[in-house]
Amino acid sequence: MRVHVCLFLAIITAPVASVAAEPGAGSNPTVRKPNIVLLLADNLGYGEPGCYGGGVLRGAPTPRIDRLATEGLRLLNFNVEAQCTPSRSAIMTGRFAIRSGTMKVPRGGAPYGLTQWEITIAELLSAQGYATGHFGKWHLGDIEGRYPTNQGFDEWYGIPNSTDESLWTASAGFDPKVAPTPHILAGRKGEKTRMLDVYDLKARRLIDTEITRRTIDFIRRNAKTGQPFYAYVPFTQVHYPVLPHPDFDGRTGNGNFADSLAEMDHHVGEVLDAINDLGLAENTVVIFTSDNGPEELVPWRGWAGPWSGAYFTAMEGSLRVPFIVRWPGQVPAGRVSNAIVHEVDTFTTLARIAGAAVPADRIIDGVDQTDFFLSQQEQSNREGFPCYVADTLHAVKWRNWKGHLVWQEYKYDAPQRLPIVHLYNLLQDPRERTNVQSENSWVLYPVMKIVNDFQESLKIEPPIPPGTADPYQPPKGDR
Amino acid sequence: MRVHVCLFLAIITAPVASVAAEPGAGSNPTVRKPNIVLLLADNLGYGEPGCYGGGVLRGAPTPRIDRLATEGLRLLNFNVEAQCTPSRSAIMTGRFAIRSGTMKVPRGGAPYGLTQWEITIAELLSAQGYATGHFGKWHLGDIEGRYPTNQGFDEWYGIPNSTDESLWTASAGFDPKVAPTPHILAGRKGEKTRMLDVYDLKARRLIDTEITRRTIDFIRRNAKTGQPFYAYVPFTQVHYPVLPHPDFDGRTGNGNFADSLAEMDHHVGEVLDAINDLGLAENTVVIFTSDNGPEELVPWRGWAGPWSGAYFTAMEGSLRVPFIVRWPGQVPAGRVSNAIVHEVDTFTTLARIAGAAVPADRIIDGVDQTDFFLSQQEQSNREGFPCYVADTLHAVKWRNWKGHLVWQEYKYDAPQRLPIVHLYNLLQDPRERTNVQSENSWVLYPVMKIVNDFQESLKIEPPIPPGTADPYQPPKGDR
Repeated sequence: MRVHVCLFLAIITAPVASVAAEPGAGSNPTVRKPNIVLLLADNLGYGEPGCYGGGVLRGAPTPRIDRLATEGLRLLNFNVEAQCTPSRSAIMTGRFAIRSGTMKVPRGGAPYGLTQWEITIAELLSAQGYATGHFGKWHLGDIEGRYPTNQGFDEWYGIPNSTDESLWTASAGFDPKVAPTPHILAGRKGEKTRMLDVYDLKARRLIDTEITRRTIDFIRRNAKTGQPFYAYVPFTQVHYPVLPHPDFDGRTGNGNFADSLAEMDHHVGEVLDAINDLGLAENTVVIFTSDNGPEELVPWRGWAGPWSGAYFTAMEGSLRVPFIVRWPGQVPAGRVSNAIVHEVDTFTTLARIAGAAVPADRIIDGVDQTDFFLSQQEQSNREGFPCYVADTLHAVKWRNWKGHLVWQEYKYDAPQRLPIVHLYNLLQDPRERTNVQSENSWVLYPVMKIVNDFQESLKIEPPIPPGTADPYQPPKGDR
Repeated sequence: MRVHVCLFLAIITAPVASVAAEPGAGSNPTVRKPNIVLLLADNLGYGEPGCYGGGVLRGAPTPRIDRLATEGLRLLNFNVEAQCTPSRSAIMTGRFAIRSGTMKVPRGGAPYGLTQWEITIAELLSAQGYATGHFGKWHLGDIEGRYPTNQGFDEWYGIPNSTDESLWTASAGFDPKVAPTPHILAGRKGEKTRMLDVYDLKARRLIDTEITRRTIDFIRRNAKTGQPFYAYVPFTQVHYPVLPHPDFDGRTGNGNFADSLAEMDHHVGEVLDAINDLGLAENTVVIFTSDNGPEELVPWRGWAGPWSGAYFTAMEGSLRVPFIVRWPGQVPAGRVSNAIVHEVDTFTTLARIAGAAVPADRIIDGVDQTDFFLSQQEQSNREGFPCYVADTLHAVKWRNWKGHLVWQEYKYDAPQRLPIVHLYNLLQDPRERTNVQSENSWVLYPVMKIVNDFQESLKIEPPIPPGTADPYQPPKGDR
């Protein structure tokens, strides 16, 4: 039945016949494997960095992120899952989160996270000889057995869940008998994760500085030994409460959000300076992106730039986030593209770059974008994808079209199942305001093929139910 | 009573004490006066060019406009009057359109336009020895005595009114006995303007190519004689019906709007090529901007990029438009600023650059931005301005704040007079969604000062009523 899976890939995959040279590392054992640094902002909307139309428009110049863009490839149509947990799951596994039971942020302490059966990019890279470090927000499990060090990371520091928990201890009437006091954690592979400080509003202001410090320390240690490294750096900014480090408090004169944006840009610059100063720039793939679109919560309202909607919906404002990749000498500098790429593709692409094979015993949704990133081909290897919000398929993107099966502009709006698919031309109508399905009903062929093939793939390989305990083994089917 | 006028200027004008060097021309008779080319798009929203986040996102790369931005200063907070006629009036006179009776597009053949009493930038430049040419859409009067050649232009070609009129002859039941058949016109100073072709849907597709051809011919002629020139080039794209030249029809594969955007970029490139090829680049100030925000009419919907609302409102999507100024060796290349500038300032600034004094016998709203454009000072010389929509004051901008007295997001919405001023922080809330007046009521001091001072200025110098016939002479007052 593997054929069905291939059929699913056939419609989302662009018909590009490319005969591409191997990238820097690949199978050539004499070329050193490139280091990989993945900087992941939290709830950073498309419009926030200067190079995406924000920066000074948001009250905070972002010179370091903007410069990074001029040194690499900047994507205008990089897509993510709609919320923290599913997005981080997709980056980690190369699989849409519906497959792994991680399709939404759990609330109220429900058991959650990636089963150990999942194979993460950290596991793949670790098997290729990489040192692997996680510095920041995990949000893929908060019990022993589901921490980063159980999923391929040699070491980790950060928070298991999300930054809204930093509000808890200051919340009137908070009772640690009914909800656990949030802590910053740290751990090493083979050891139990241990508690550090309470994650309160003071710690919230300080944590990204410590994430950056530990990231740079990790980079320095590996630069010394020469071991290739993978630094996964999921910053906690600009998730609410968006409160900057004291050094940045008041820095811009434009409030907490702008100060925090300036702080994030500064931390990005610190990591890049470390890479550059250590002479690692040429052999290090640096990615800067975000987990999902902005949070609209005032007073820290984020901004999706030109798009409608906000995170945890299937609007463009939820799905499109900044994405910059720099790899000097490999990725041409200053290139900009509106081609569709999905975060699941980072799994497959980074695996290829590091010379690792992706798992063959399960469906991997990511497609290899190496040749596109390296400009060995003009176009992305992806033409579309299904957009789930929690456990419901809300929409499908295909080329410049978007079909909505469910309409929901903001996460607190009630989702409305549409009687017929609504179709939007994202080039002519970026704000998704005028349904043009009647005039373009041919587009429903590829759109519904993505829907049907994806649902077929879920039958072939049934999704892991949320809250599934370890050890998990997939049911024996006819695959 | 001149003191009141000065008070009005005091609040909109930034408290900058600058001792700036003279720009290229100025009072030095040995330096040649720079040529000026003002390229004005029609209904081009903030988000359309690539350098403002559009381009490929709209299905049409805009490489020439984007390159122009890298060669000059790009403004993120350049503001205009809300509609074609008032906007063109403001550019032409340096005065908010409410003063000159040109505050909205007339409908149904009502007499309109600039009285001959107004002093246009073309008249100022002409008096400084400039050759002055108008190529494109005028929209400031459609009778003899109110054509461009009656307002300081040596020659003109184009349409007196707007491009929607190109739809008339194809409109079922159109009767030329009740409404005049639209024509393309042309004229020379001292002669009567004459009719050329009917302005129908075929001509609509062709006209920007002819505008460009005549602009380049004008530039070449003056390059030969060495006379400094002012080319005012109000293109008809991308006003509805947004139909491209046949050479661009289908060029992008993304529909009429994208094709027309590509066509506009091409024409901008043609004009720039001519300037460069003639060796005039160093001595030519080139401005590219738009008259107002986008038209939302489907199927040619324009796009305001990140802002809310559309033209003929006081939303940011109406007021903020692209603005690029290039002057090699004078305006630093690649600079970007979010400082407030208003189109009335182009009048005063271009006058200064050409060594002309602005009229002293009337209120001029424009402030001199020369030193800001030339980076001889960091900040704009303007801190705010009142935003009229037709004859009603809808809003006031001041620094990063916007106070709405009237709320209207789209031109077909009924304007709602607000019981108290609504206040938006444009850095924290670019979409103007959350009124934060209660938390920031101090801002109402400068906002209401702009309101009151402006209204006071209208008492000192009463506005000219719309439809006033020539000759107009202001009533003798106590000024």
